[in-house]
Amino acid sequence: MLALPAGPLESGTAMNPLIYSLDLTGTFVFALSGGLAAARSRLDPFGFVVVTMVTGLGGGTLRNLLLDLHPVTWVADPRYLAVCLVAAAVSFLWARWLESRLRWLRVADALGLGLFAVAGTQLALSAGTHGGIAVMMGVTTGIAGGMIRDVLCNEVPLVLQQEIYALAALAGSVSYVLLDLAGADGLLAAVISFAVCTGLRLAAMRWNLSLPAYGGGRMPEQ
Amino acid sequence: MLALPAGPLESGTAMNPLIYSLDLTGTFVFALSGGLAAARSRLDPFGFVVVTMVTGLGGGTLRNLLLDLHPVTWVADPRYLAVCLVAAAVSFLWARWLESRLRWLRVADALGLGLFAVAGTQLALSAGTHGGIAVMMGVTTGIAGGMIRDVLCNEVPLVLQQEIYALAALAGSVSYVLLDLAGADGLLAAVISFAVCTGLRLAAMRWNLSLPAYGGGRMPEQ
Amino acid sequence: MLALPAGPLESGTAMNPLIYSLDLTGTFVFALSGGLAAARSRLDPFGFVVVTMVTGLGGGTLRNLLLDLHPVTWVADPRYLAVCLVAAAVSFLWARWLESRLRWLRVADALGLGLFAVAGTQLALSAGTHGGIAVMMGVTTGIAGGMIRDVLCNEVPLVLQQEIYALAALAGSVSYVLLDLAGADGLLAAVISFAVCTGLRLAAMRWNLSLPAYGGGRMPEQ
Repeated sequence: MLALPAGPLESGTAMNPLIYSLDLTGTFVFALSGGLAAARSRLDPFGFVVVTMVTGLGGGTLRNLLLDLHPVTWVADPRYLAVCLVAAAVSFLWARWLESRLRWLRVADALGLGLFAVAGTQLALSAGTHGGIAVMMGVTTGIAGGMIRDVLCNEVPLVLQQEIYALAALAGSVSYVLLDLAGADGLLAAVISFAVCTGLRLAAMRWNLSLPAYGGGRMPEQ
Repeated sequence: MLALPAGPLESGTAMNPLIYSLDLTGTFVFALSGGLAAARSRLDPFGFVVVTMVTGLGGGTLRNLLLDLHPVTWVADPRYLAVCLVAAAVSFLWARWLESRLRWLRVADALGLGLFAVAGTQLALSAGTHGGIAVMMGVTTGIAGGMIRDVLCNEVPLVLQQEIYALAALAGSVSYVLLDLAGADGLLAAVISFAVCTGLRLAAMRWNLSLPAYGGGRMPEQ
Repeated sequence: MLALPAGPLESGTAMNPLIYSLDLTGTFVFALSGGLAAARSRLDPFGFVVVTMVTGLGGGTLRNLLLDLHPVTWVADPRYLAVCLVAAAVSFLWARWLESRLRWLRVADALGLGLFAVAGTQLALSAGTHGGIAVMMGVTTGIAGGMIRDVLCNEVPLVLQQEIYALAALAGSVSYVLLDLAGADGLLAAVISFAVCTGLRLAAMRWNLSLPAYGGGRMPEQ
């Protein structure tokens, strides 16, 4: 049931080099979004380090704790911490410049979301969980880091009230589970479900799609 | 030392059917309270899903992580997730109507609190922990979900400043541990300590009982 | 690689009595800081108990969960909970008096920080982790409790924006790892790195040293 040929995703050194690079890149992009939040909250340099690490590594860490998969990715492979440190330094020094390139950052973030959602789903299935739980783990991997970031910076998590973000993670995770159930090749399933998640997120950004927020008890307009 | 005949509470399918139904019902009621908080924070539908899950499942999850009891309840049994999804849908569609029935919801919540506190205490004792730790786990199971709910919705947790709520969980857990030490039959101990917890909570609601809040350093009025 | 003669720090009863006393004292001091935060948020007595426990035990608990070291300290040894209960009672009754002695509390807190940072680093190294991860665990043990305290009380964690605090934990942890790599005797390494951490924190308090906060995108003044 494991999709990728090179071993479970949490074992960095044994991982397919392409996937490993993508995983580190996704961590970096998520960590940068943490650095921008730290800049908005005017934290000190150490605050940048903490928030980038929590944002970049939080989702995968929570997933591994819930599934009892040890060691946690970054506990076994310090390069994940190094990537977050670089993101903290970059965002402390150049946050204003980064904000002016926000559009590209958000595209990169959409790529990271797709990668994390698929990787989390895959890992959960390969650990033998039920499909519904695997979906939950894919979504958790994709969004929990950003949620903890917002809680630390004392805001209601953006992902709970924003345009389509978590829904994209959900769509990608569900696609992977369905393709897996249908017996699809693991790599193919990964590519398709990644495209579903990231494509939906990019489309939502492009055309300002959003879910109806709660409107006080009337029937939502669907 | 295990109180209920049908196996540890986290293994849903092997559980006594009555206890299992009560456990799912308690999860549903707690999840609904999360949905009402999501409505107050005007979250989108996905926000409702996240907050209901965190509220309904958070306490038991934290308990299991702390005690290293795996798999976590809902990781092994997707029906818990399904119950939270239903609560999310119900509260998204009918939150205003639910608010008008708040009194009955709070009665149901008191029942859920008693059940969770007793179940958490029981599970910890059956895992061989010290009685004081088992009390802590009972209280954690009862209140942690609601605390995470309030943190996500950016409020100081209600349970830390409200009328008697956590104290009721504490009273129920202590009762169970004492009855267990005294050699009482497990089912009897469960019923009595459930009655203590839920009864105290209902009494506090009925007569507006509350603990003295911190009054700035003078001796509290006890 | 284990530094102290008496066994891993999380096994309270087998620990060197001096270290064990210091560990309980550090927990007490951290818990008191939680009690003062509870007083500022005007919580009820149970709120004091929750916040003192989370502050005193949170860092070590998170470290043990991340490293999969079970049982968690206080799950195996109820004296840690008892110490937090005493801190809750003391701060509920005498918070105003404590605030007037804040200077001494902060000195005690600096001692606790040094102890926790060294103990966390040591424990991680003895569990066989990479040095960089061990540093991370030392810092986590020292600061995570205070961060959760501030999140519960609905504030941006002080440690992320304050004068030199986390940096002191970092310096102590790095010192320990370097001394360990250099083959220093474990007790000597512990004493030196404790002195580095606590000394830096006390110096920062004495001379109001702080890191530059984020200044809106210009190059920080280093």
